[in-house]
Amino acid sequence: MEKHTYKDPKLKVFSLSSNPELAQKVADEVGVELGKISISKFADGEIKVNIEESIRGDHIYIVQSTSNPVNDNLMELMICIDALRRASAKTINVVMPYYGYARQDRKAQSREPITSKLVADMLTNAGVDRMLVIDLHAAQIQGFFNIPVDHLMGASLLANYFLDKNLSGDDVVVVSPDHGGVTRARKLAEFLHAPIAIVDKRRPKDNVAEIMNIVGDVKDKVAIIIDDMIDTAGTITLGAQGIKDKGAKEVYVCCTHAVLSGPAIERLEKSCIKKVVVTDTIALPKEKHIDKIEVVTVAQLLGEAIKRIHENRSVSPLFNEQFKIID
Amino acid sequence: MEKHTYKDPKLKVFSLSSNPELAQKVADEVGVELGKISISKFADGEIKVNIEESIRGDHIYIVQSTSNPVNDNLMELMICIDALRRASAKTINVVMPYYGYARQDRKAQSREPITSKLVADMLTNAGVDRMLVIDLHAAQIQGFFNIPVDHLMGASLLANYFLDKNLSGDDVVVVSPDHGGVTRARKLAEFLHAPIAIVDKRRPKDNVAEIMNIVGDVKDKVAIIIDDMIDTAGTITLGAQGIKDKGAKEVYVCCTHAVLSGPAIERLEKSCIKKVVVTDTIALPKEKHIDKIEVVTVAQLLGEAIKRIHENRSVSPLFNEQFKIID
Amino acid sequence: MEKHTYKDPKLKVFSLSSNPELAQKVADEVGVELGKISISKFADGEIKVNIEESIRGDHIYIVQSTSNPVNDNLMELMICIDALRRASAKTINVVMPYYGYARQDRKAQSREPITSKLVADMLTNAGVDRMLVIDLHAAQIQGFFNIPVDHLMGASLLANYFLDKNLSGDDVVVVSPDHGGVTRARKLAEFLHAPIAIVDKRRPKDNVAEIMNIVGDVKDKVAIIIDDMIDTAGTITLGAQGIKDKGAKEVYVCCTHAVLSGPAIERLEKSCIKKVVVTDTIALPKEKHIDKIEVVTVAQLLGEAIKRIHENRSVSPLFNEQFKIID
Amino acid sequence: MEKHTYKDPKLKVFSLSSNPELAQKVADEVGVELGKISISKFADGEIKVNIEESIRGDHIYIVQSTSNPVNDNLMELMICIDALRRASAKTINVVMPYYGYARQDRKAQSREPITSKLVADMLTNAGVDRMLVIDLHAAQIQGFFNIPVDHLMGASLLANYFLDKNLSGDDVVVVSPDHGGVTRARKLAEFLHAPIAIVDKRRPKDNVAEIMNIVGDVKDKVAIIIDDMIDTAGTITLGAQGIKDKGAKEVYVCCTHAVLSGPAIERLEKSCIKKVVVTDTIALPKEKHIDKIEVVTVAQLLGEAIKRIHENRSVSPLFNEQFKIID
Amino acid sequence: MEKHTYKDPKLKVFSLSSNPELAQKVADEVGVELGKISISKFADGEIKVNIEESIRGDHIYIVQSTSNPVNDNLMELMICIDALRRASAKTINVVMPYYGYARQDRKAQSREPITSKLVADMLTNAGVDRMLVIDLHAAQIQGFFNIPVDHLMGASLLANYFLDKNLSGDDVVVVSPDHGGVTRARKLAEFLHAPIAIVDKRRPKDNVAEIMNIVGDVKDKVAIIIDDMIDTAGTITLGAQGIKDKGAKEVYVCCTHAVLSGPAIERLEKSCIKKVVVTDTIALPKEKHIDKIEVVTVAQLLGEAIKRIHENRSVSPLFNEQFKIID
Amino acid sequence: MEKHTYKDPKLKVFSLSSNPELAQKVADEVGVELGKISISKFADGEIKVNIEESIRGDHIYIVQSTSNPVNDNLMELMICIDALRRASAKTINVVMPYYGYARQDRKAQSREPITSKLVADMLTNAGVDRMLVIDLHAAQIQGFFNIPVDHLMGASLLANYFLDKNLSGDDVVVVSPDHGGVTRARKLAEFLHAPIAIVDKRRPKDNVAEIMNIVGDVKDKVAIIIDDMIDTAGTITLGAQGIKDKGAKEVYVCCTHAVLSGPAIERLEKSCIKKVVVTDTIALPKEKHIDKIEVVTVAQLLGEAIKRIHENRSVSPLFNEQFKIID
Repeated sequence: MEKHTYKDPKLKVFSLSSNPELAQKVADEVGVELGKISISKFADGEIKVNIEESIRGDHIYIVQSTSNPVNDNLMELMICIDALRRASAKTINVVMPYYGYARQDRKAQSREPITSKLVADMLTNAGVDRMLVIDLHAAQIQGFFNIPVDHLMGASLLANYFLDKNLSGDDVVVVSPDHGGVTRARKLAEFLHAPIAIVDKRRPKDNVAEIMNIVGDVKDKVAIIIDDMIDTAGTITLGAQGIKDKGAKEVYVCCTHAVLSGPAIERLEKSCIKKVVVTDTIALPKEKHIDKIEVVTVAQLLGEAIKRIHENRSVSPLFNEQFKIID
Repeated sequence: MEKHTYKDPKLKVFSLSSNPELAQKVADEVGVELGKISISKFADGEIKVNIEESIRGDHIYIVQSTSNPVNDNLMELMICIDALRRASAKTINVVMPYYGYARQDRKAQSREPITSKLVADMLTNAGVDRMLVIDLHAAQIQGFFNIPVDHLMGASLLANYFLDKNLSGDDVVVVSPDHGGVTRARKLAEFLHAPIAIVDKRRPKDNVAEIMNIVGDVKDKVAIIIDDMIDTAGTITLGAQGIKDKGAKEVYVCCTHAVLSGPAIERLEKSCIKKVVVTDTIALPKEKHIDKIEVVTVAQLLGEAIKRIHENRSVSPLFNEQFKIID
Repeated sequence: MEKHTYKDPKLKVFSLSSNPELAQKVADEVGVELGKISISKFADGEIKVNIEESIRGDHIYIVQSTSNPVNDNLMELMICIDALRRASAKTINVVMPYYGYARQDRKAQSREPITSKLVADMLTNAGVDRMLVIDLHAAQIQGFFNIPVDHLMGASLLANYFLDKNLSGDDVVVVSPDHGGVTRARKLAEFLHAPIAIVDKRRPKDNVAEIMNIVGDVKDKVAIIIDDMIDTAGTITLGAQGIKDKGAKEVYVCCTHAVLSGPAIERLEKSCIKKVVVTDTIALPKEKHIDKIEVVTVAQLLGEAIKRIHENRSVSPLFNEQFKIID
Repeated sequence: MEKHTYKDPKLKVFSLSSNPELAQKVADEVGVELGKISISKFADGEIKVNIEESIRGDHIYIVQSTSNPVNDNLMELMICIDALRRASAKTINVVMPYYGYARQDRKAQSREPITSKLVADMLTNAGVDRMLVIDLHAAQIQGFFNIPVDHLMGASLLANYFLDKNLSGDDVVVVSPDHGGVTRARKLAEFLHAPIAIVDKRRPKDNVAEIMNIVGDVKDKVAIIIDDMIDTAGTITLGAQGIKDKGAKEVYVCCTHAVLSGPAIERLEKSCIKKVVVTDTIALPKEKHIDKIEVVTVAQLLGEAIKRIHENRSVSPLFNEQFKIID
Repeated sequence: MEKHTYKDPKLKVFSLSSNPELAQKVADEVGVELGKISISKFADGEIKVNIEESIRGDHIYIVQSTSNPVNDNLMELMICIDALRRASAKTINVVMPYYGYARQDRKAQSREPITSKLVADMLTNAGVDRMLVIDLHAAQIQGFFNIPVDHLMGASLLANYFLDKNLSGDDVVVVSPDHGGVTRARKLAEFLHAPIAIVDKRRPKDNVAEIMNIVGDVKDKVAIIIDDMIDTAGTITLGAQGIKDKGAKEVYVCCTHAVLSGPAIERLEKSCIKKVVVTDTIALPKEKHIDKIEVVTVAQLLGEAIKRIHENRSVSPLFNEQFKIID
Repeated sequence: MEKHTYKDPKLKVFSLSSNPELAQKVADEVGVELGKISISKFADGEIKVNIEESIRGDHIYIVQSTSNPVNDNLMELMICIDALRRASAKTINVVMPYYGYARQDRKAQSREPITSKLVADMLTNAGVDRMLVIDLHAAQIQGFFNIPVDHLMGASLLANYFLDKNLSGDDVVVVSPDHGGVTRARKLAEFLHAPIAIVDKRRPKDNVAEIMNIVGDVKDKVAIIIDDMIDTAGTITLGAQGIKDKGAKEVYVCCTHAVLSGPAIERLEKSCIKKVVVTDTIALPKEKHIDKIEVVTVAQLLGEAIKRIHENRSVSPLFNEQFKIID
């Protein structure tokens, strides 16, 4: 692929440490070389960022997911933003395929922080001009920012996987693994013209153990559980078993963000789940890349968005249509 | 009831125009007279606020719901805050039982505003020190503020109504009228030890009309539909009919915020709904107070919260427990 | 008139609800189509703004007077600004021919708000880059903003009306209807080479009724009373009568902002005033457009200013010269 | 007078360089010793401020007029505020009897600054909690601040001078020396139950010299010209002569702020003015204290205001009543 | 030691993860129990902070050094601040014995960040009211904050160690290990009445290796090298050897902040250094606590400062005097 | 030299009062005429700034040192910035060759201000987009700003003077006049491949007079004392004598900023110093331009930096290389 340079002001893409493989693919889509930057960690754990080319007057896109190690990745990003601003970048655009701390988006208990707002404020105060994100845990997180947030959706990428396998219609049921995810399940179900169901945990009486209930019909259907992220995979593997017990033919699982921490891989391996479809918003290390996991890339989606933003063309077609790029 | 004065600094409660009856009850609970203020509207529509007693160094609690006419109520509040700040109030605490524009809390489409964040910024920039609210449309709206937000829940007040009628257990089903409200339904269901169901609208194929589906079992049960607010009552009356059609014995509806605009009253009157249980976060004018509607007051909840805030006692017991005050 | 498009970045003019006729004329002067936007009000009074074309990277001019209903018009503007900023407008320029709440520009009494500063802060915090206004009630309101405010004057447009009628020189007297407006009267008097007079209300002793006094000579002259706005027309019709009583031949009245609320039209009709000359900064509904009222348009003035701003040409010639555009 | 100490938190009054005599009087009124502070100027003109007692947790009132040398006085104040904030003052209250740069309160010409807003922003950003001022050049300057501004009026102090001399009623006329000051003249006239007049400069035709005109009747009356400040005294001495020429018996002049720069003293000496009544908001050096000048002190007014602010008592009685303190 | 409670508002001390032993000692000095808080890390690396007692209206002191792992410790602090602010703490005071990222305090090269300013802004924007720190790498870092910073000095604590060993006067020389630390060396030398020397690395010609030079006289003296922190101990062990080679009798090393990362312990063990005197601003894990290292505690210094701050007593005596607390 | 105009947007250079000669040279280097501006001082000391050409949409560079009279120069700059911002400048770049109040960069004593941070905040809040400075007293002052600061170094300009005279190598010693300046001395010494020494004042015992000590070897060498600024020249002339007394052959002195206030010129004249090499960051009035003083201009350095900034070319080559421009 031939590289070219966006001129006057220039568009530059920089990759930080979290997901260099995706960053490279995004730069390829945009048609530029990755910018030169070196990031090192001193013996005492402090991060040092060196931007190794002039970026004076340029439009900068930094690709960084705040996945594990989240605090290092976040501070690396903050320090990079500080360096770019002091070095006279024209605009600083953060491409954050996975937004860490997103689940701490409200006070569920007394004296809790709202860490995802804290992160939004940190980024805004450091001088970010725009965020480009995918499938925020809650859409309201957009409102945690006053700068423009271009919020892309992974649902159509995941839907394409199932449509390609002819998994659609009334033989399929899309399942939300909890009460908060029903809207997300309905969205995927719409792509697949399928009904929905919900895993509902309830406690029939006080001091009685919680039981798992499946609200909706899964019998003899191919069930597709969808969540925005899979973390330790406890909820989703239990939910899958519950669905199977209710007579589902097969259980698929899909999500945008493959956090996969702690016992996740072992649980997925042992589970009744047939396939786990994820995207590459979070880098999947080799040791976690088991056969059951299928990875769909978001690189084209991000690359197309960056080009449209830079050229002042509308990004909204990427939100609304079933996203497919044919070369 | 004997009135007393909180001393040095003083606690004062002021009522604006939206809900003077509730404000009076709250002041009674707190044990103070309402502060003297006059609010007028000039012939050209401009609002004039006159605070008619010194509030220098006092802790002020302003009671105002941003219900219809929302823009007038909001500007009245903003102007009052400006006057209080310039008049040297020590702290300005906004008691907003109903938070208007709450449904515009994210960009659902391209180029949409996030008006509930805009309102949060307006209030914060005007100089509010604290918000006291009930049942925000989305809990994430707390994060739209960086000042403390004490977020009270109406669920236990509504639950008490049904518990008092022995409506609980497996003969009851709590129904969410849409995909986004399932967590709220589960919360009420927990108070009532009941199962849940969801009204699910879906389109079986492209270019085919949407049909209403009930996910979960409602047959021969007393169904209680819960939402945070009832606006034009279209969704909820259709949902109620759908549930009835599926064999529910009786359908109750409950919500915290009785917006009840446009055709709402007529629709509720004509519907198969037995009772509509609401709170008084929004003033219910006489002409809307039909027999089907039962009103539960939030005055004790708010009054108790204000006293705890003023005395630096924890407000969290009000969040967590089933709120009942016995005189 | 042929339409053309300002390119890369584009200039776009949007009209909100308050004065669409003027907005259309301004767009015509600038030579562009009005931008596509839909504004609706829900049954509960909440406003919804939909920007129906991409404005990414564009320079936006929003035309909105905060005339009656002032709170609705102001919130409509605020919401539109929020939407534009989140949709990546390059700059947001508010063209506000009439600035509502301008009379609340200082604390005249204890514990009063300064609402016109509050409005300035609201606009600034929402993300406005520039204001384009006409005849602010007090010139100091410019200082309520730290963003650039291009402040145009309607005086020369009004003066032209009288010059065209040969009303100038010592046969004419320009009258200020109150103590605060003498500078404005002197300004118009300069255009007309005329002397001035002041309507002076005073109380000769304590507990004695206020009497009206005319300071200056009006006998046998054509008197022209000037104010920045006419609201209920009480002051101005009484003043006109007082002047007439002192022997003025004829009394004209002129102002930039035709607020004309409450009994204004009836009072003007019944008064001794010969003609009321106003501009179209505020839309004049048909039922108020009585024969006595002459309307001068500010569209050319605003259109010329927008073009100069967009092309980085000086706007000051529009301030200083007697503004006349000959096609 | 016995000194006492306001306890926990303490009230402290500090004097900077501009007006130590007034500051001492204010401290005496409040009943405290002046706080220990040393201010020096290095050989290169830089100012050094040393606060020489702990002010941790205290309420500080700094007395400083930004009179000539205005830039030194302003920076001295700014530096002192910075030191106080870093030294953990509880609140910083600036008592600014004369607010310099007040006349640059709007853009009168293209590309002018609004320096009085700039000064307001400087003070606010430095960390001031409250302003206490007297007779701002324009009342709108209050709105340049978002912190509380307690705005005292000198008019009653000046009025008392004339009332004590039985100068009131229809034998007196209060004269505004220009078009912008008529409201101020009317205010004093109200205290004196007198009519008003205006000095009106006009140009009868283009390219013809400006002539002075007196609008209103001064013949055989005692004229009292009032302005907020007298700077070079050019306008006011010319105006006085014009009034005298029109037949006034005697001409008095009064103002709150005795700027008296350049040729002012010489002009006043030579003028037909009988007495010039001023306050001590600006220190009057001995060489300027000519016989014609009478000085009324604002110390009681300021001291009373500080005590009321500190004790959270209303300051508004000082605005509204004719201020007289009887020991 | 008897515990007591500071009343209304209360003083509370909380410890985060970095240095719980020091935090406990500080709380003991202050005379309070440590506040109840639980901090956990999820499997995906995200931090969760739970404040387990009401802190509404209290003055909170959080003890946290941003030592290794610096990013985790910093984010833990930020999240805790967010939780405290939302839970209505009256003031949030950060006690940061060691300020990480302090060496990135200026742009030494093109396109470098100024991370210690970034950290200051992060803390300020999160809502910190005051910082309490010890021996900032550069005193100018105080100016990175606009909130009060109480900056304590460890020099006298270190000096006491040497005075107790009679190491003072002209038999001793205090050595700065680099050009930037000479002022610090002079400060310690003043406590010990000793001369100073500097380790000076220079390059005699281009393309010639750097040589180590000792500026000043060390022969037959006891040399005490002082730095603010010892990180990898490379510079300091080389410097010690250089001094020994020039004839110093013995070499001591001292510093406030024992970073001791990477090869530090091994280098110190192998070096000619007799003793390394450090404080406990950074927790020294057992495996690093070799015999050569002597630890002096800063707990009394911090505890005394906190008590003085809370009681509005001057902290400056702790800056200026040789700090010794005798029980 | 032919003048040309930078187009769309334009680059304009304005000179304020402090150093018009340098400003003219800078404009010549850039290749533009100085912008038209008039600055006047009213009789009462207030400054009036009139920008006498349209600067709408232009990139403005204002040349102003905050040298004596520092407060006037600083306020002149602030007022000019305010005017430019309100007049719609695209960017405001302050070229401040000498940054006044730089020595007040930390709290050295209790209750001191940090005036150089205060100044940084004042400039930032007024709307400056970028600073271009030379040899800040402390490099950390860059961190007092969050806007880009391009920090140029005068060291190579001074070094060139000595290299041209063949003053380099081991016959030369570069001397720091105090403990804080050793890094600066080492930097110059590197250009000259010379060793360093330090003037060290110490007090051998309590209550004994301070003595001057020279740490390092100066005997039979040409000593070059370097400082960032020479103010009253007390330290430097005493230091020079001390060095001479220790056997130095000749003593040169150099600095970037020739403050030269109070007795400076007299002291330098009478001293044993051979030459004083300074730059023109501060205008040197004729009466101070004694024979001993050699002035090196920074105009080329500044001009080249401005051109690079305007054209988005890297400025860093100017930091790192020995700056020499050959025409």
